[in-house]
Amino acid sequence: MSFRYTTKMLHESALLTDLYELTMARAYHELNMRDMAVFELFVRRLPPERRYLVAAGLPQVLEYLETLHFCAADLEFLGGLKLFSPSFLDYLATLRFTGTVHAVPEGTPYFANEPILRITAPILEAQLVESRVINLMHFQSTIASKAARCVSAARGKRLVDFGMRRAHGAEAALCAARAAYLAGFDGTATVEAGKQFGIPLSGTMAHSFIQAHDSEEAALRRFVMTTGQPTTVLIDTYDAERGAYRVASLARELKASQSPGQIRAVRVDSGELTAQARAVRGILDDGGCPEIEIILSGGLDETQIDALVRAGTPVDGFGVGTRLDCSEDVPSLDMVYKLEVYAGKSRRKRAHGKETWPGTKQIFREHAPSGTYTGDSIGLADESRPGTALLEEVMQGGRRVTTLPDLAASRDYCRACLERLPPALKDLDGAHDPYPVVISAEVRALADRLDQSGE
Amino acid sequence: MSFRYTTKMLHESALLTDLYELTMARAYHELNMRDMAVFELFVRRLPPERRYLVAAGLPQVLEYLETLHFCAADLEFLGGLKLFSPSFLDYLATLRFTGTVHAVPEGTPYFANEPILRITAPILEAQLVESRVINLMHFQSTIASKAARCVSAARGKRLVDFGMRRAHGAEAALCAARAAYLAGFDGTATVEAGKQFGIPLSGTMAHSFIQAHDSEEAALRRFVMTTGQPTTVLIDTYDAERGAYRVASLARELKASQSPGQIRAVRVDSGELTAQARAVRGILDDGGCPEIEIILSGGLDETQIDALVRAGTPVDGFGVGTRLDCSEDVPSLDMVYKLEVYAGKSRRKRAHGKETWPGTKQIFREHAPSGTYTGDSIGLADESRPGTALLEEVMQGGRRVTTLPDLAASRDYCRACLERLPPALKDLDGAHDPYPVVISAEVRALADRLDQSGE
Repeated sequence: MSFRYTTKMLHESALLTDLYELTMARAYHELNMRDMAVFELFVRRLPPERRYLVAAGLPQVLEYLETLHFCAADLEFLGGLKLFSPSFLDYLATLRFTGTVHAVPEGTPYFANEPILRITAPILEAQLVESRVINLMHFQSTIASKAARCVSAARGKRLVDFGMRRAHGAEAALCAARAAYLAGFDGTATVEAGKQFGIPLSGTMAHSFIQAHDSEEAALRRFVMTTGQPTTVLIDTYDAERGAYRVASLARELKASQSPGQIRAVRVDSGELTAQARAVRGILDDGGCPEIEIILSGGLDETQIDALVRAGTPVDGFGVGTRLDCSEDVPSLDMVYKLEVYAGKSRRKRAHGKETWPGTKQIFREHAPSGTYTGDSIGLADESRPGTALLEEVMQGGRRVTTLPDLAASRDYCRACLERLPPALKDLDGAHDPYPVVISAEVRALADRLDQSGE
Repeated sequence: MSFRYTTKMLHESALLTDLYELTMARAYHELNMRDMAVFELFVRRLPPERRYLVAAGLPQVLEYLETLHFCAADLEFLGGLKLFSPSFLDYLATLRFTGTVHAVPEGTPYFANEPILRITAPILEAQLVESRVINLMHFQSTIASKAARCVSAARGKRLVDFGMRRAHGAEAALCAARAAYLAGFDGTATVEAGKQFGIPLSGTMAHSFIQAHDSEEAALRRFVMTTGQPTTVLIDTYDAERGAYRVASLARELKASQSPGQIRAVRVDSGELTAQARAVRGILDDGGCPEIEIILSGGLDETQIDALVRAGTPVDGFGVGTRLDCSEDVPSLDMVYKLEVYAGKSRRKRAHGKETWPGTKQIFREHAPSGTYTGDSIGLADESRPGTALLEEVMQGGRRVTTLPDLAASRDYCRACLERLPPALKDLDGAHDPYPVVISAEVRALADRLDQSGE
């Protein structure tokens, strides 16, 4: 009943799965169904608010698969459920993931129906990992896709993730920071994310620091002096313009005295931000501090960033919090992990509105001579089609066959990919044609054959 | 750069905080500001989609506070940032939370501006814990509030959390299961949540199990036979009505043979659910299986549950997934943690649109003779006001002063509280007067005095 993860670390628990994965595993085990299955991970449809998605979360998936095991406490708990035979629990005790994984590189833009991850393994293993594989890839893809829109809207201005407090738990905070950085953010305020992933950290002060002093002027001065280096201060605790006058005066004094503590930037977190920023910019410039930057925050998302930039707001960077870390407008994607092949035979789900394209598939992406992507096709993996095949083998026999790029390299790759997207896709409004994705004739023919021959 | 939390468990990391909490801590330390601060946690305003909220997450907050410490690896990382002096890092090495915590019991309904948690501690400690305290309380409150609406809509029908795969990470999946159970759900599919919190587990089979067989009939038979106990089967992989005929026939056979494996329920996960459920109910009843229950799932939320129940859909339970675990319509609340008192003096933030009510406060809740709540007032903690004072001391000197109720007891308490809410608040549409919450004259007078005297 406790929240302590005494037996192993939370993110490693083999019990981070839906019960039905285990009841199906039991059935596969007892029915001796040990043939290879192919499962593919894809998003069934794009939400209207997204013109493209960004793949993220692969290193976490591979780490999960490589370390998957049931410890004694897991097995004891499962035994207590009275659902599983001792022989099945003995089997679970030795279970390791032995499959093959193909995936698109992290940071790759993708579209509806495109398989971004494929797992080929004995069906019991491939099925068992479904819940956590989706859980990891879904969240980071959701955030990277939102963050990429913020990056487009910011047009080169600095973006920092401020969202930990309203992210959905600890792992969400860390993975949101990671996914946002992958998609082009410049840093995060979440310290543990800096430690885990090497993301640049950013952060300054809260209103409470100002409020804990009897005077705002004293609070600003004391904060900068103890910091002993260039720093950002918050100026809207009582009145942003009055705060700006105080900053200009203090900054002149600090410059004159060559104090190690200097004011590098001011942050405004409330009110009508364009008007506030203009007033503050004027006060700072008139006060001899044109070098002090302005950071804006407070419930921002890509739409507001876009409006602020378009309005010519004098701003150098944005803190983006809740609406990024929760992906407020699109908190979930219709991402699924579906059986495509079992025992060498293609499979197709035909539940109403949830039909799948069968077979082991590949994404082929074509581009113009300029490098701009012109369209994708989804074909069978063994088809020969024009374009670059995006899915690559990253794990075989349960072990990585390649060293994934580090986060900074994936961030560079993501930026390069986003530059190659048709520009209209990066407009925030959705009033454009969708990116062309076709299903190959071979995939369609396979679906037809299955519909006619099977259940 | 790895996702392994090698030094301690993720949820315990003292670095799960925003950088500014640490830069402010450094300033408080170096300025020798060691006076007591009072911070209160509250939601500034209710989203239009919520008429009340449900407090959740307190045991996790207390565990975090009790175990808070910086380990050697944390300090080494912080040292590498070149932001903190060795003497400050030495101080952090010995830091423990020594404060007092008051909170409303878990499961308590609450409203805008009501402080549901109050921390009184030396300002450095009280400030440092802000990010993680909000992170824990915000998410569970968000989910419990959503889940309570589902419980009202389901009118006694069984509800199970199916949302792990699209929850925002591992902790979100676990805490969503917990918060939903607190608010009246009957169980979860997330196995680790069953282990951590003792929540009843539920789960059956996925479409892939059916697809891995050449015939649906064989798949159903083999699943039930290997299960060896009453179980739920999924019938819409190809066609729900055809699935229902197969189930009726198989169920009769299993009953006749007194097999330990029996069909207890069928699940339908796609299509127009009322029509499907009616057709399936008819087929099962006509087929001599009136005892087989019908479970519906597939993108459900409280609005759809309400519509299904109102339409008289023959249904015994619902699986609620993504829209619950992401709180799809309201993925975040405007929950904040604000300084109210420092060094014996009340404090007020006046940033535009983000003004706070100052002072150490208490919630007083009144009720009619019938038990129904009639309204709340927010007064100063030392005011004498009508109604029940909701905030209770739960921690003193960094140690719990009371044993919190276990999750099942909190669930009972939550149910009793929700029964006492004015019925109109539980209507899903928002076309009713809000619950009355008044700010006491003493709090207003204190705010006026601060506005006149201070910054």
